[in-house]
Amino acid sequence: MSKYWSTAVKNLVPYVPGEQPKDKKYIKLNTNESPYPPSPRVLEAIKNAANSDLRLYPDPEFHELRETVATYYGISKEEVYAGNGSDELLAFAFQAFFDPGKKILFPDITYSFYPVYCKLYNLDYETVALNEEFSVPINEFLRENGGIVISNPNAPTAKYISIDEIKTIVEYNKDRVVIIDEAYIDFGGDSAVKLIKDYKNLLVVQTMSKSRCLAGLRLGLVMGSSELIDAIIRIKNSFNSYPVDRLALAGAAEAIRDEEYFTETVAKIVNTREWVALRLKELGFEVLDSKANFLFISHSKISAEAIFNHLRENGILVRFFKKPRIDNYLRVSVGTDSDMEALVKALEKLLW
Amino acid sequence: MSKYWSTAVKNLVPYVPGEQPKDKKYIKLNTNESPYPPSPRVLEAIKNAANSDLRLYPDPEFHELRETVATYYGISKEEVYAGNGSDELLAFAFQAFFDPGKKILFPDITYSFYPVYCKLYNLDYETVALNEEFSVPINEFLRENGGIVISNPNAPTAKYISIDEIKTIVEYNKDRVVIIDEAYIDFGGDSAVKLIKDYKNLLVVQTMSKSRCLAGLRLGLVMGSSELIDAIIRIKNSFNSYPVDRLALAGAAEAIRDEEYFTETVAKIVNTREWVALRLKELGFEVLDSKANFLFISHSKISAEAIFNHLRENGILVRFFKKPRIDNYLRVSVGTDSDMEALVKALEKLLW
Repeated sequence: MSKYWSTAVKNLVPYVPGEQPKDKKYIKLNTNESPYPPSPRVLEAIKNAANSDLRLYPDPEFHELRETVATYYGISKEEVYAGNGSDELLAFAFQAFFDPGKKILFPDITYSFYPVYCKLYNLDYETVALNEEFSVPINEFLRENGGIVISNPNAPTAKYISIDEIKTIVEYNKDRVVIIDEAYIDFGGDSAVKLIKDYKNLLVVQTMSKSRCLAGLRLGLVMGSSELIDAIIRIKNSFNSYPVDRLALAGAAEAIRDEEYFTETVAKIVNTREWVALRLKELGFEVLDSKANFLFISHSKISAEAIFNHLRENGILVRFFKKPRIDNYLRVSVGTDSDMEALVKALEKLLW
Repeated sequence: MSKYWSTAVKNLVPYVPGEQPKDKKYIKLNTNESPYPPSPRVLEAIKNAANSDLRLYPDPEFHELRETVATYYGISKEEVYAGNGSDELLAFAFQAFFDPGKKILFPDITYSFYPVYCKLYNLDYETVALNEEFSVPINEFLRENGGIVISNPNAPTAKYISIDEIKTIVEYNKDRVVIIDEAYIDFGGDSAVKLIKDYKNLLVVQTMSKSRCLAGLRLGLVMGSSELIDAIIRIKNSFNSYPVDRLALAGAAEAIRDEEYFTETVAKIVNTREWVALRLKELGFEVLDSKANFLFISHSKISAEAIFNHLRENGILVRFFKKPRIDNYLRVSVGTDSDMEALVKALEKLLW
């Protein structure tokens, strides 16, 4: 604390991202990054953009990228916007659509940045308890509220709700905004982007950090009716005229265009996820059904914390959340086949 | 307006950046970018960073860059932080150090993003009128206030206040934060960074968009006592864990290291600025003393708006602010010698 801090900064409870240790080389299964490099076409596009034009500001309206994404999803350019990672766009959305005093609803177990944004913008929220098997209780979102945020698939549970279930929520809440955070949608889910034409209150947020292998580039996307996108633009233009740099704009547009690499990479991750889930079940783990690039697992015989420590000692990082209800679970990102063989071997050593 | 917008977003008055027209090739003297490309070493560092590691999140604490800047300025790593352009860092600082209800002070003629941040965070402000020749009236900042923001050199006037004058302001206001926005400090001014050891209430904000020729990379720096930097970190970690991407981190660190290119580029711009100022005076312009990479000029015979339009028709973009007190002035970025020869020629055509 310092006398110079504003009341706002004193009240914050900042988010803590997964560790990025530098003490030795780990198999990193703790931050849901892709185990595969970005598409070679993306790296080439970035290198080409590393030229003398870097002296000039980037396009503040991201025209080329927005056109590329609009074509990809069959929507209009006015229905899509970009930002410095989906975190920035989520922050903008919390400020753009939610007012202090009215309770925002989101699951009790979900992306832990949501309550952080509420503190940042002085917003009130109420968590909705996931049911016992960690699925989202749709009916609990059909009541008075100040806005809704649902991560789909949910993190860290990896569980997915269907488009019809989202439709039920969005339909009931027509007078307020429903944010669907689709950070992990490409790993087997069906995107709600197709609903934005029918529901002006639906905002879909995506990221290139996971399925596009570009966590290091910082690129998020937001899709919704133009009246919602206009609010995001107003916030962005009151905060930072150019949050996405020239290199990120060039790389991101190429990542969307290179559908072949994208499809192939996602298929590999899904394939790995499925065999790993089977092997973990054989080892006695409970493994939640995953439509994401990670697995949420628990073992009845050894505590999650003990497994976490054992893996760390064996050079494998996973994510352990010391939080109510999930303090006996681990979130394990899906790596390459060989990463995951190493994981299974390390677990066998512990359990056998 | 939309029923989905928050009260906050409805009340915003977004900033409008200088135009980036695409209809034809202009000599761009309207956004104070550098006319010179980034250092070849910077472009090389970025290309080298465009590798498979882009699948991984960037260092959320910017260790390497902060160490590089700390060494450059002879301060500690805890006294420096980075952000997505100085705009992002200014936004963080307004939220971190200013409270609603207490009036922030800044000049009536200055960077027009400051009042935008006030709206964004619901802060109150009072402008201090620059005196007739557009210099900052130091004594007007020696009174009760909720915080102070001064751009030095000021934009768009290009006028500079001395370290001793800053010291007077910072000394008087020891119980609140004084932000010195040094976007243009490298073009002849003396940085207030040397004062941060003595004044825990002083925050210095800089950018790589001007003197480092990297507007397209989005990199800002903030320097101050560790208790001020900690507040910036708390805001940043409540907003976006990774606002600076891997490529920007790599390029920015190299830009700081390549002192030779930096010194040479800045010297060229200063040299050009000086001869252009003389030529403009010969043409009857009032030219304010500039320590920045732009000139603030006015002509008694032809209106600024008419000159602006004439230049635009001749393929030269400058910045015209249709605002009280300065609506007969133009802000002209310093380009290459040949850019500026073209400018002078176009003006001669109009005036002779």
